[in-house]
Amino acid sequence: MVEKVYVTYNDVHKLCQEAAPKILEEFKPQLIIAIGGGGYVPARILRSFLKRPGSTNIPIQAIGLSLYETLTDVADVEEPGTKVTRTQWLDLSALGEMENLVGKRVLIVDEVDDTRTTLEYAVKELEKDVEATRARVGGKEAEFSIFVLHNKDKTKKGTLPHKMLENGKYIAARTVGDVWICYPWEAVDIDAHDAHALEQKANGEKKNGDA
Amino acid sequence: MVEKVYVTYNDVHKLCQEAAPKILEEFKPQLIIAIGGGGYVPARILRSFLKRPGSTNIPIQAIGLSLYETLTDVADVEEPGTKVTRTQWLDLSALGEMENLVGKRVLIVDEVDDTRTTLEYAVKELEKDVEATRARVGGKEAEFSIFVLHNKDKTKKGTLPHKMLENGKYIAARTVGDVWICYPWEAVDIDAHDAHALEQKANGEKKNGDA
Repeated sequence: MVEKVYVTYNDVHKLCQEAAPKILEEFKPQLIIAIGGGGYVPARILRSFLKRPGSTNIPIQAIGLSLYETLTDVADVEEPGTKVTRTQWLDLSALGEMENLVGKRVLIVDEVDDTRTTLEYAVKELEKDVEATRARVGGKEAEFSIFVLHNKDKTKKGTLPHKMLENGKYIAARTVGDVWICYPWEAVDIDAHDAHALEQKANGEKKNGDA
Repeated sequence: MVEKVYVTYNDVHKLCQEAAPKILEEFKPQLIIAIGGGGYVPARILRSFLKRPGSTNIPIQAIGLSLYETLTDVADVEEPGTKVTRTQWLDLSALGEMENLVGKRVLIVDEVDDTRTTLEYAVKELEKDVEATRARVGGKEAEFSIFVLHNKDKTKKGTLPHKMLENGKYIAARTVGDVWICYPWEAVDIDAHDAHALEQKANGEKKNGDA
């Protein structure tokens, strides 16, 4: 059975808070792209911590990507598909100087890097958009960076550009094993969810204390 | 001084959970439109509770609306502007049968109904889009409904269609006075935020007990 790891809302909040200074220092993003649905919550929290006094909020654009969903509802089985479906894409027309991504610093946010399929799709498609615009109007490349709450340390199906992985343009707040991460927004009983999380933290500390 | 009311993530989660059966019964939404940034978190949580076994998730589209922001950063003063800026709009092209909103049941989600300016804008512009499509291809009106976590009981600057307010197409999980609602995703210290919330709940219960 796959190990379940329970993550509370406050855990998510603190993971975003912890990562924010590093993101500001290394990326200075001008736009956040939230991959929905999982990226919505971390992206909104991050925006609070990335705001600097005297500046406006960094705008968020949501894109909707989901791995192919089957209609069967098999309880307690997580079966990510491999086909990415696009349900919403960027609308930069109203974003003033952000009317295209050429030369921009863009932070892509999702909750988890599991098979990496979704992130590969997002980066490739966004780069394609930028290149199409550059072919028309010129300008510098866009710089993409990624923030996820959790990266699963496992064989990935998708790949990301080397320059992104090697130059610190990829930040995972936590790297975990190939576990089943239970995010709070999926919890049917949020109090029980938090109790599980608390218990796991207590056990983790005990284990560390024993070592 | 304006009274501050602290709302925890778990409060938000439970407000969405509590409203979900009513939303399913009265609206049966086919599409959720999240008004960003405040609507991102409740929309994502709601999606979990609106999912029915054997069905796929209800798709979420994010739109970006914000009241005009000043560049000055006045601490402890909430100053909502009156001009709505649109930073992202719908992209229905990839949503299959949702390629337009004609005849659809659409749930608009935001965190708070304060002056009602943003909600008025959202409903009017969405209806305009539907009417433009109907003028071209015909079909039934779309049915819009609204869910917010909190409605502030105050004089509103914006208005919503009577049919929406009168036919139960507007659900606020809670109606509050003209207070300052502190949502968790804005909290700099989430533990202190939760402690404030807990204290307020204890005081509230004490007050009720005295009455």
